[in-house]
Amino acid sequence: MFDCGEGTQRQMLAARLGLNKKMKLYVTHMHGDHVLGIPGLIQTMSLLGRTEKLEIFGPEGVRDFIESFNRTVPYNLAFELEINEVRDGIVDKEAEYDVFSVWGKHVIPCLSYALLEKPRPGRFDVRMARRMGVPEGPLWKRLQIGRSVKVHGRTVSPTRIVGSPRPGSKVVYIADTRPCKSVERLARGADLLVAESTFDDSKADKASEYGHSTASEAARLARNARAKELILTHLSVAYKDPSVLLKQAKRIFRRTLMAYDLLRLEVRPSRK
Amino acid sequence: MFDCGEGTQRQMLAARLGLNKKMKLYVTHMHGDHVLGIPGLIQTMSLLGRTEKLEIFGPEGVRDFIESFNRTVPYNLAFELEINEVRDGIVDKEAEYDVFSVWGKHVIPCLSYALLEKPRPGRFDVRMARRMGVPEGPLWKRLQIGRSVKVHGRTVSPTRIVGSPRPGSKVVYIADTRPCKSVERLARGADLLVAESTFDDSKADKASEYGHSTASEAARLARNARAKELILTHLSVAYKDPSVLLKQAKRIFRRTLMAYDLLRLEVRPSRK
Repeated sequence: MFDCGEGTQRQMLAARLGLNKKMKLYVTHMHGDHVLGIPGLIQTMSLLGRTEKLEIFGPEGVRDFIESFNRTVPYNLAFELEINEVRDGIVDKEAEYDVFSVWGKHVIPCLSYALLEKPRPGRFDVRMARRMGVPEGPLWKRLQIGRSVKVHGRTVSPTRIVGSPRPGSKVVYIADTRPCKSVERLARGADLLVAESTFDDSKADKASEYGHSTASEAARLARNARAKELILTHLSVAYKDPSVLLKQAKRIFRRTLMAYDLLRLEVRPSRK
Repeated sequence: MFDCGEGTQRQMLAARLGLNKKMKLYVTHMHGDHVLGIPGLIQTMSLLGRTEKLEIFGPEGVRDFIESFNRTVPYNLAFELEINEVRDGIVDKEAEYDVFSVWGKHVIPCLSYALLEKPRPGRFDVRMARRMGVPEGPLWKRLQIGRSVKVHGRTVSPTRIVGSPRPGSKVVYIADTRPCKSVERLARGADLLVAESTFDDSKADKASEYGHSTASEAARLARNARAKELILTHLSVAYKDPSVLLKQAKRIFRRTLMAYDLLRLEVRPSRK
């Protein structure tokens, strides 16, 4: 999860995501609309019996915030809570993905995040393996990790049985920021780029004053970074109808969508 | 406002209550489902330009909670915020109403509140005032506050022109508690009694263990206190269909309603 504004726990229930799954929370900065849902999420998870560890990453201040409400709002924390205060760079390494961050340019320190899925091994062709006489078991495993095996004195190469590795996806989440080089580098080649777009182009002065981006600035970021798809989010509450922002962005980057509550998307990695 | 759980700011917008009106917040206790909406409410009020002072009342701990997020979640507080840590007794005196509190019996210190509207002056009979030759102005005001006036040497009594005072309403909000005498005294003669009813009668043991009330206990409170109307609220999330609780309560106290999001009620004082 990237950021956790007020009401996130309710939306998670509405989305039927479950509160006891493996998950991590990456926080971009300490403004209320990005963190005020954390206390309620943690407390409801505790109440409903979460046992899985929850890891939270965020800039300096996130620990003080969470420890403050743990002190002032009594409840029984039912699971392990690991808080990691991070800077720009590699912030998290998992078997299936890495998470990177850069500082953007906002009125307070604010990180943006990229999640890079690692390539998955290629598809294993069971029929071909059988046809070539490789018995199921340790030899299959050996082929799967890219090594050749010997069967009845004959060498079988993995390239005959295992397809080429499937690339992982790159998902990038750009939080409150003016356009800047660091963020553009982070977004490079993103399969899915979620970017803040607080104002429409007619309010470029406000975007500049408050450390935000306009719709066209978000679209130029997507174009310059050669992203595959752009989702606009974090609109000012002033916009009852967000179509003006979508229009402005699409003029610059055609594959743009406007985020809405409970939007679901499948991210497909593109061959690079 | 009594208590402020997560998402309250959103519901206030949905109810079109406005964020710059005179209002006060009375907090019953420091559990998350009663306070976690305060930070977002204050911050959104600031963002949308509230200028009116906001007074918050609550038990010890409410100041530390609010000061903690004011320190850890940066924003510009745009209006005066007055935090009053209170105990049982008279907690607030206004021209139009007083607010009283008592301690209930919960797992942490928890207040319940009663708002007593003061009697309003009787209706002023403009036609009668004119017929009796009382000129509009200071003499009308004098009559309105219950004093007689002299017109052309003749005494005019206020009882001829001003009706009898209209009684104020009594609204009582019973937060998380076991049934107890203090709460019953507070609820006496309430025109509207809003009471927690976390569990249905089959879970009386849980109610006892966690310091809550069952539907029948809430109904007995309303009956013993001779309340005019009872609203059940604070149901456990386990109840998808709250009708079982309503049925149990109605067996004991007929004028019972189940609270739901954005329910609106007009409170009419009864002649006592």
